[in-house]
Amino acid sequence: MITVAFPKGSLLKQSIHQFQQLGYDFSDFLDSSNRQLQIRDRSNRASGLLVRTQDVPVYVEYGQAELGIVGYDVLREKRPRVAQLADLGFGGCRLSVAVQAQSAYRSALDLPPHCRVASKFVNSAREYFQGLDLPVEIVPLYGSVELGPITGMSEAIVDLVSTGRTLKENHLMELEVLYTSTARLIAHPLSYRLDADGLGDLIDKLRGLSWEPVTG
Amino acid sequence: MITVAFPKGSLLKQSIHQFQQLGYDFSDFLDSSNRQLQIRDRSNRASGLLVRTQDVPVYVEYGQAELGIVGYDVLREKRPRVAQLADLGFGGCRLSVAVQAQSAYRSALDLPPHCRVASKFVNSAREYFQGLDLPVEIVPLYGSVELGPITGMSEAIVDLVSTGRTLKENHLMELEVLYTSTARLIAHPLSYRLDADGLGDLIDKLRGLSWEPVTG
Repeated sequence: MITVAFPKGSLLKQSIHQFQQLGYDFSDFLDSSNRQLQIRDRSNRASGLLVRTQDVPVYVEYGQAELGIVGYDVLREKRPRVAQLADLGFGGCRLSVAVQAQSAYRSALDLPPHCRVASKFVNSAREYFQGLDLPVEIVPLYGSVELGPITGMSEAIVDLVSTGRTLKENHLMELEVLYTSTARLIAHPLSYRLDADGLGDLIDKLRGLSWEPVTG
Repeated sequence: MITVAFPKGSLLKQSIHQFQQLGYDFSDFLDSSNRQLQIRDRSNRASGLLVRTQDVPVYVEYGQAELGIVGYDVLREKRPRVAQLADLGFGGCRLSVAVQAQSAYRSALDLPPHCRVASKFVNSAREYFQGLDLPVEIVPLYGSVELGPITGMSEAIVDLVSTGRTLKENHLMELEVLYTSTARLIAHPLSYRLDADGLGDLIDKLRGLSWEPVTG
């Protein structure tokens, strides 16, 4: 039986909708009273795991799930050994450099050398500034990265932006886009090649789906 | 003005209560409708930051907060350069090795060499098993570590245990305790030595408080 790792959070509803279009019903994961992290779909043909978005590639890499749905941002930051099969198109956002709106900086290269940049995406941020040949100190944070410039701890941040509302509310402005991210379908490389349990067929169907946004 | 970094989550209510006993009122942070991460206490004598528990030592290390309250588990795992001033006594829990309840393991040394151990506390887990001279593969996870043994991804987990309810619900049993953790008062080392804004006096008072649990 195929196991699919679903990401908690903003990609969950649309991910479950994609599988629903193929007749797999994992909607119990959307029920807020549900405490189970491992369920069978209602047709009893597949099994689902509900995990943190950063943990999706871990379960797929170790083979506990044959398939997973995860943001490209996580794949780019963590570089797990998984097969990246399809861009599912939804969950669009971008990883951006932002600074205080009233600052005089107009591009990343305006930032002073050795300034501090707060981010949850330390690898992506480091790579980006190395590519610019601008030495900066990356301050690793777990949440509320926008507090970095507000408190004066960092000159800039590197963070995910979707609507831009959080930036606006915190008087920050976007300077540069490192990359854009969308939801991706990933697979355990060996399972993918062995094609057991009709995995290849399911992947083809998922690839073929056009995605319509679910509302509500 | 002194700035205090408060940890979101399980330590927050008691942390705010400690300061309340000294006349500093940061109870706005407990209001679920509050979206502000930086506030003044109501007596306007100190300022508070509300951040993820793992970020508390970061704000203190970089000097954006003179004081912070954080679990010993975070200090032990991340080893930030902050002054550890007092064990505040509340928020007790332990970092433990756990395995499936029906397994035959009775101690960590019963685990097979090169088995997998899932944990959010990768440094603490690695150190512990190195101390035992038992080679294991640490699988880093961000959440729901109990899924490791349930899905068969890992033989054991290293995770925080407070009441033991999560372990029980997931049919896991505790084998070993790596260390116990409680809330700690930390300070920016230089601010502490310079003793500006009455910091030393405030620290003495916080040290002197007995803590009574807040209910509700």
